[in-house]
This record gives sequence, C-alpha cells and structure tokens, in this order.
Amino acid sequence: YTREEVARHRTPGDRVWVTHGTEVFDVTDFVELHPGGPEKLLLAAGGALEPFWALYAVHSQPHVLELLREYKVGELSPEEAAPSPAATEDPFAGDPPRHPALRVNSLKPFNAEPPPELLTQSFLTPNELFFTRNHLPVPAVDPASYRLRVEGPGGRALSLSLAELRGRFPKHELTATLQCAGNRRSEMSSVRPVKGLAWDIGAISTARWGGARLRDVLLHAGFGDKAPEGEWHVCFEGLDTDASGTPYGASIPFERAISAEADVLLAYEMNGQELPRDHGFPVRVLVPGVVGARSVKWLRSVAVSPRESPSHWQQNDYKGFCPSVDWDTVDFRTAPAIQELPVQSAITEPRPGAAVPAGELTVKGYAWSGGGREVVRVSGERRGRAAGVRGTAGKSGWDRWEKQRGRGWAWALWELQAPVAAGARLDIVCKAVDRSYNVQPDTVGPIWNLRGVLSNAWHRVTVTVT
Amino acid sequence: YTREEVARHRTPGDRVWVTHGTEVFDVTDFVELHPGGPEKLLLAAGGALEPFWALYAVHSQPHVLELLREYKVGELSPEEAAPSPAATEDPFAGDPPRHPALRVNSLKPFNAEPPPELLTQSFLTPNELFFTRNHLPVPAVDPASYRLRVEGPGGRALSLSLAELRGRFPKHELTATLQCAGNRRSEMSSVRPVKGLAWDIGAISTARWGGARLRDVLLHAGFGDKAPEGEWHVCFEGLDTDASGTPYGASIPFERAISAEADVLLAYEMNGQELPRDHGFPVRVLVPGVVGARSVKWLRSVAVSPRESPSHWQQNDYKGFCPSVDWDTVDFRTAPAIQELPVQSAITEPRPGAAVPAGELTVKGYAWSGGGREVVRVSGERRGRAAGVRGTAGKSGWDRWEKQRGRGWAWALWELQAPVAAGARLDIVCKAVDRSYNVQPDTVGPIWNLRGVLSNAWHRVTVTVT
Repeated sequence: YTREEVARHRTPGDRVWVTHGTEVFDVTDFVELHPGGPEKLLLAAGGALEPFWALYAVHSQPHVLELLREYKVGELSPEEAAPSPAATEDPFAGDPPRHPALRVNSLKPFNAEPPPELLTQSFLTPNELFFTRNHLPVPAVDPASYRLRVEGPGGRALSLSLAELRGRFPKHELTATLQCAGNRRSEMSSVRPVKGLAWDIGAISTARWGGARLRDVLLHAGFGDKAPEGEWHVCFEGLDTDASGTPYGASIPFERAISAEADVLLAYEMNGQELPRDHGFPVRVLVPGVVGARSVKWLRSVAVSPRESPSHWQQNDYKGFCPSVDWDTVDFRTAPAIQELPVQSAITEPRPGAAVPAGELTVKGYAWSGGGREVVRVSGERRGRAAGVRGTAGKSGWDRWEKQRGRGWAWALWELQAPVAAGARLDIVCKAVDRSYNVQPDTVGPIWNLRGVLSNAWHRVTVTVT
Repeated sequence: YTREEVARHRTPGDRVWVTHGTEVFDVTDFVELHPGGPEKLLLAAGGALEPFWALYAVHSQPHVLELLREYKVGELSPEEAAPSPAATEDPFAGDPPRHPALRVNSLKPFNAEPPPELLTQSFLTPNELFFTRNHLPVPAVDPASYRLRVEGPGGRALSLSLAELRGRFPKHELTATLQCAGNRRSEMSSVRPVKGLAWDIGAISTARWGGARLRDVLLHAGFGDKAPEGEWHVCFEGLDTDASGTPYGASIPFERAISAEADVLLAYEMNGQELPRDHGFPVRVLVPGVVGARSVKWLRSVAVSPRESPSHWQQNDYKGFCPSVDWDTVDFRTAPAIQELPVQSAITEPRPGAAVPAGELTVKGYAWSGGGREVVRVSGERRGRAAGVRGTAGKSGWDRWEKQRGRGWAWALWELQAPVAAGARLDIVCKAVDRSYNVQPDTVGPIWNLRGVLSNAWHRVTVTVT
C-alpha cells in the first residue's frame, strides 16, 4: 500500500488503518478495546503508530506488538517504506537531565519520586528531588519569546511576556506541598490491580513558590472580584502537547482562582530559583491544597469558562469511584474532578521489611491535608508480635504547628521515638487528623478505585528488631 | 452553723464548705476530684449546692449524695435552715413546652433528638422536631426590649434592637444543616464509656434560616473586610447563663465571620417562622458547615478579639483527642476547638434489630460534611450471613446533587432499594465521601475520644429478614 491509501482509513466507517515500520494494520475491531480509550487510538488513524507509541511508554511491551500482528493486512510499498525522520524522532529526546537518586516510575513521559528516606530530610524538598509527574514530553521554552495568553471578558486577551508577568504584578511567596492523586497507589494495587503509575509514598513534595497571584492577573485582565451568576471555571493549558497537538489541560473553580485567601500563583520561582524545566519552566500554575494535576506546568493560556476544562485529565481521569465500579461500568461524568485532597500521612523511616537495631527506634514521616486544612495530630502505633510490645504512642505536634497557623498549605514532618526490644516483629502504623477533624480510613480495601487515586489509608510498615 | 459561718469558707485556704438541705459539708478534699472541674465546684463555695445541681442534672443521682455524705461536718442552725425560695427555684421552670415525639437525653438542660424515622421524612426538619442542644436554662427574652450588643473597633459599640437588625440589614436566607459534635456518641460509648449525653444518630437537623449576615453587621460596626495582622476571632455570648451569671459563649475565626462566602447569619427566622424559644429566640448565630456549638443561641453580644472565646465550651470542651488520652492526661490546650466537622452519614431506616419483610428493602439515611464540602457519594453495603446475600450496592447521588451545587451547607437525604431473602440476618453499612474526597473511618475504636465527639465511623445496622 501507499501511505496515501493508508491515510484514507481514518474512521470506523472507512476502516481504521495504521502503520508500524513497514507493516499495515486494520485495527477497526480493536478501536473499542483500546485500553487508553478509542479516541486516543483514532488520533493515529491513517498514519504511523510510532509517534504516539513514543509518547506512551506502555506500548513498548512485547505483548502489544503481538496483539497488533493479529490485525496485519499488508505492507507498505518499498518506495513508501522509509519513515520520515520527523515521525520517528523521540519526542522525549529534549527532556532535561535528572538527578540519579530519583526513583523512576516511567521514563517517557518522565515520572519519578524521591526515595522516602530523602523525602523527609528537609522541610523544603530540593528541586532536584521534587517528585515529577509529567504527562507528555517536556517542552523547550525560550524565555525571551515566551508569552502567556490570558483571555479576558468580552473576547479581549492579554499576552504577557515573562518580564511583564514579573514586573507588573507583585511577587507573592508561599510554602506549599503538592501531591499527586496517585501517591501511594502501589498499596492500592496490592488489593486489586489498578491502572496507573506504581507510585510509592513519594509522589508528594514541598517547596517555597514565588510568582504572581492568579487573582491579580485575572483582575488585570478585566474580571471582577465576583464570578458572574452560575458556575465558572478557570481553565489552563500547558505548552506540553501530544502527537496531535493537544495540550495538557486542567481547570479550577473561578471562586478559588479569584480568592485572595486561596493563594493561587502563576509561579516562576521554586525554592528561590527559576522553575526547573521538569517543573514547568518558565511559568506554572500553583494551586495550594489541591491535587497536583491542576497546577498546570509550562503554562501557555488561562481562560474563564462556564465549563470545566475539556481536557482528558479533567474529564476522564483524576476522579474517585466506589470499589464496585470497574472499567466496564465506569462513567466518568458521575464523579467530580478531584480538587482538594483528603488527609494523608505516611512513614518514611524505617522502610518496610527493614531490620532495625534494638533500643530507641526513630520513626519519621509526613502528614498533610488538602484545602489548607492543616494537620492537627499524627498518631503512631507500634505493635510487636514476638516481644509483646503493644501500645499507642501519640504525638501531638499542635504546639509546634500552632506557630505556623493560618492556611495550612504545607505538610508537617513528624518524628517519634519508641523503645523496641530485640527479636520483635513490629507493625508500625501512622494516621493523621486535619483541622476539620477528618481522619484517614483504617484500611485501603474500602477506598480502592480503578484508577488507584486517593490512596490515604493508615500507613503500615513492618520491620524486624535485631 | 449559720449561713454566715458557711460563707467564710470559699477557698481551699479557708476550707471549702457547702450546704445541701440543712447539712453542711467540707468538700476541700473533693475540689480537685470534681468531675466537672474544680472551678465549677468552687462557684458553689460558701453557699447552697441546690441552684448549681439544678442546672446540671448529672448531680441528681443517688451516688452523688452518698459521696457528699463522706464530707459532712455539721448542720445549719434550725433558724437558718429554711432555704430562701429564690435559691431553690427551678431555673428550668421557664423552659418552653416540647413536642412529645422528641427523644429526651437530658431534661435540665433540655437535650433531645427526633426519632430517626422522622428525621429523614423531609429535607427540612420541622422546627418542633429539630434536635435541641441546650447547655443552660432557656432565657425568657422580651423581643421589645431585646438589644444585641456589637463591639466595634476602638471601644465603640452598637446596640441593635430586633427591629433594627431586621430593618437595617438585608435579609439573607439559606438552607443549612446543624450537627452537634456529640451526634452518634452512643456508638462510641459502646467501645468504652465516654463523658457526655448519649446521643443516637439524631443530633443533626436541617432548616431554612433567615437573618442578617454577620458580615454586614460587622462592616456596619466599623470592621474592615480584612482582619488586622495576626489572629482574630469573633466571640459570641448568649443570654443563657449559669448560676454564677456566666453566659454560654463560643467563637469563630474572624475570616469566617467576615467572609461573604461563609454565609454566617444572625438568624431570626427558622423555616419561615420566628425562631422557637429552644432554638434561640429572638436571635441566634448560624454558622453553616461548623459544629453546632458555635451557633450561639439567644445572642446577646458579638465582640472581636485576638483570642478565642474564653468560654468553657470553647476552651475545655468540644475538642478531639487520641484514644490514648484519658481524663488523667488530657490537656485541652493541646487540641484545636472543633470548627468544621468531618464527613458523616447514617442509616435512619431500618432501625437496628428490626425485623423486615423479605422482598425489596428500602434503606434511608442522611449524609453531610462540614465546611461546605457537599457529599458526592454515599455507598451502602449489605451482607447477609444466613442467606449468603453479599454485595455492594453503590449509590451515586451526584447527578441529583449537581443541581444544588455551590456551598454544600445542607445534608443529602439518600435512599436505596435492595432485594433481601427471608431468614437472612443482614448487616447494612453506609459511608459517605465528600467533595474533598475525605471518607468516613471504617471503625469507631480508633476515633474513640474521652468526650465522645466526632463519632463518624461507617454506620452499621443489623436486621433480620422475616
């Protein structure tokens, strides 16, 4: 076949054809079975699979090629076979170098978390170790030509250079924790498999952010302090795009965006430095107290809309469901897009399965909650089966945190000491309570969901004492 | 002894004497052991116990008198013995009549809840059935002479008549649920005894409230939209007072009081009628999304302060603690006063232990969360031991609640049907998820606390199918 012939097969009505290397496949019957959704597969219809597969590393597994072979219908003509260099170029080739300590959950797109032991070494996570959640290749942005488009009321729009964003609006600084909705997903997978990256407990980090308030930019663009009647959202698009040119996108309610108390930033600084490329250089949204997915990186546009962002990640991802909902029954329209996250805590030291020396054991961890509801208590519990050690070690950090009160955007790092006897097997448990007195659920089973998000049951670590 | 002699013993240094009937007691050694706190007992020092005991019905138990007898030191002279009529007058004699359907947990002060079956019969709870949580006798207020004192900045103060409150400020109406911190306390007591009224699941109700916005009154009094630097609170006092003249009091953060979004009212209407006497006639505070204890009834004063209300109920009550904290170790300063409540739900029908007919079983209940975080999902689960019925019946009310979105001040009433077979013993469970995706904890043991507040574990009801 010629590429032109293949290109005529773009819809199920015309049959859906794709190429891989020099082979041609009719995947019409597979469209509805595509795990990523039929609409994603149709983006590749009539052309080569490679640029799409390069974006989604899940395809680089042998069984994917085996599955594809069932649908083979022919070969490209020899004169057609040479793929265009552009089409096979690795879209991730331009990604920045990364710190070797990061634990990589996915290389393309890059998703990685710091090792737990490093996570709680400092209140502010070093930029190099901050967990990275990329959905697409990291765009290469020239700061000199960068422009942020802000759509104002009545069809007017601002176009702000980086210098204008820095110069026209007061710089606002705050310390905030970001957490991925998938943090601690691997614990959920151990109940039943879920779809998503196997994050351990490190998809959470804290930084000091600096930037313009989104509120100030929206007021400058002509919006008022109050939303018009009805429901309004502020939609963000990134400069990171998929093979079809569709950008990453997300939205937050207008009330949060315009609120002086909600502290939403268009951030250009992270821990006193310019944003690293992996974290949105030169400008990202920073929505404190809200799931990381709404803090759009490499920000290219801000728009106010009566509807939430139409993006896949707002509409058909990052939502919570009952354990009884599976991929056959899920209807993403029935659940709200995750915004504020529930109360969370985890033990970073010791690690599960560790052998710890008898004597005074130090247990460390973090605790955080969404919506600015700061953590008011973390309780640890240790139970020793062999040595009969049993008890509850409560730690109230309230006195210390009292000093940092107000909007609790940042995590609390906690630590407790407990004497442990040799020969014991210890089950260590931690659980936090936030300002609204919400608590973590006892077990992960009842909060299991098909996407493995919102995993916030008590954290349990078992160690042996030597 | 003469009453004058008794009256000289008012402090531990002078010994603490009290009278009961014609008997005189030296209770110095009991002061520190007093379950209600030493300061409460000292209010009665040098005088008669009766007016205090009449306020706190817990004293009308035989063991209290037995305990008192240990401390007897003598008798009043016969000419002194006749108690003054005022001192023994029942301070609750002026309480209003109540609906016979209410389930009374304490008569003096009056505390009562509607039967669960009536609770979810209508979205708005009828005023007569609205749960009542009084801490003191109901004050008799003459609406014509009623004045609300509002302390402004710089020592100025407003004194507002009822007509001025109604006439000067726009009337604002909203539907909000109030819940007592002790709702579902009886389930907590079944783990270990707690101190407090044995509320079942009915210390929660919903009404349509009308009144002036607290925000408007504060702005009128001269406060600005922003709090001054630092921490500020708005303190409320009621016209209900204890025997020493100390009023009920509570406070909320200034930010909530002044916020247009937080909808805090000085309410004078409840479901279209003037406030009933039990619910604060003529004016009460109504703080949506916040524990009922802050919605001060029979409001007499509003003041802005750098400190929370000094009231017992703000400082030494209505706070949450670890299960490991008991009355010997509790330090009320270490926990924050409860404001926003955590996510909650309960089954109102069928009732525990009920025999239900085989066929289609209807399960009803309510779900609510604090802070305006509306409920996005309620899940029911039924497990039949005898008949092997087992499964999860998920109910998403999102579609319906979508229409009422915004600030979720009111509960969601839910209902589900499930087929049940004769002979089965069914365990029915319900649990809710709120907009921040916080969930109810699986079990009550780990959230047990000495005051029995914040009882929001999954609700479980066991029935037999006939």
